[in-house]
Amino acid sequence: MLKVVVIGSGNVAQHLIQVFQKPGEVKLVQVFARHTEQLAGIIPPAKVTATMNNIAQADIYIISVSDNAVEEVSSQLPFANRLVVHTSGSMPMEEINQKNRRGVFYPLQTFSKDKAVNFSTVPLCLETENEEDYLVLEKLALSISGSVYKINSTQRRSLHVAAVFVSNFVNHMYAIGSDICSQNNISFEILKPLIKETAEKVNLLPPLQAQTGPAKRSDSKTIEKHLEFLNDASYRDIYNLLTKSIQETNG
Amino acid sequence: MLKVVVIGSGNVAQHLIQVFQKPGEVKLVQVFARHTEQLAGIIPPAKVTATMNNIAQADIYIISVSDNAVEEVSSQLPFANRLVVHTSGSMPMEEINQKNRRGVFYPLQTFSKDKAVNFSTVPLCLETENEEDYLVLEKLALSISGSVYKINSTQRRSLHVAAVFVSNFVNHMYAIGSDICSQNNISFEILKPLIKETAEKVNLLPPLQAQTGPAKRSDSKTIEKHLEFLNDASYRDIYNLLTKSIQETNG
Repeated sequence: MLKVVVIGSGNVAQHLIQVFQKPGEVKLVQVFARHTEQLAGIIPPAKVTATMNNIAQADIYIISVSDNAVEEVSSQLPFANRLVVHTSGSMPMEEINQKNRRGVFYPLQTFSKDKAVNFSTVPLCLETENEEDYLVLEKLALSISGSVYKINSTQRRSLHVAAVFVSNFVNHMYAIGSDICSQNNISFEILKPLIKETAEKVNLLPPLQAQTGPAKRSDSKTIEKHLEFLNDASYRDIYNLLTKSIQETNG
Repeated sequence: MLKVVVIGSGNVAQHLIQVFQKPGEVKLVQVFARHTEQLAGIIPPAKVTATMNNIAQADIYIISVSDNAVEEVSSQLPFANRLVVHTSGSMPMEEINQKNRRGVFYPLQTFSKDKAVNFSTVPLCLETENEEDYLVLEKLALSISGSVYKINSTQRRSLHVAAVFVSNFVNHMYAIGSDICSQNNISFEILKPLIKETAEKVNLLPPLQAQTGPAKRSDSKTIEKHLEFLNDASYRDIYNLLTKSIQETNG
């Protein structure tokens, strides 16, 4: 049985706390959090502490706090030579204070408070300082997901940037589409099958090959009409830049 | 039984030809195409003509050619006062020559030659000059899809622009993510669950509410690191512009 302590109470921490409470090879022995009120209803209060010195013995400590707080929180841990990992996509493993054995446990998924996540398909990107710890961390990862990858800090940084494009920026495109619909009294529902189909296509075709639309066709007449239609300057800038980029990439 | 003639042999035309050949309320009586070789294996040669004067009698003629050819093809039709529709998202209904009764049959979906489309969930956006023809066109639409909308030319133009954002531009974000992965020896597979989850979220949360990531959090340290990492100037421009736009929209 692997004993785990989660440190943090934010979005990712809450999802981890929930999945590690499910019966299995892993036992969530404690959660440390400064703001314990955020954990109400997620874990029994007896398992939560806000006092560093009360932190329990465990095989793995998972620091899931904001990127900028990893260094400070890890330096305040009142023990040494234990396995301590963070969950950040953009921070190097070395951000963790070196008094402990360091690692990374990065779940590559978008977590919203309002939506449950099925961890079994979430890619978990792992890194540790030494091979022995890797096996422990891998055991933890495999207990919740079928998709576990060994990823070093450099690769993880590039994955994090790629994730911003395929998730954060994609969602912003959805937001713009939704805004254009509502400005023209059209239900955003009409666009949802298109959103679904576009996302599903990556499973069948490389995105470069799947590209369609006026930019790809260099259909300047339609592009001009679209730019005329867009009266929001920021949307027009985005339309212009992405059209240009599609033409360069596909040209 | 509704008799239909499809005019055209491109991407959308081919998908329509296939779906209208399925048994049901609709009979595809003929296809007119200049380039009949593209239709090999899709429809029996006896049903195809390349001669305008041989065009068959039907209840609805669907012109599915490139946007710029709609006007010319419709003016060449050797008959008048029949129901003639086009399938373009960006062309007004009036692009069709006025000697016939005009309409639009716009399937709002992304069509690739290499991927079959399930029409039953494809939104069909309909418009006609007169109400009687609308009922005929609606009957045709409902025979293949459960998702039929009355959309005028102004609304359709805005839908088409919105579709470019949520599909063409989204796919380009996938292409950039895929490129960053391959440049760093990481499998694009790792990003696919994230792509799926991001797309599925629109069914549960409005995109504005679903927004996550460094731009939304105004996490300038991470944004800076990402910009440092991106050595492709075009990707950096896109990162900057979309980050700014997310901050304006969510601010």
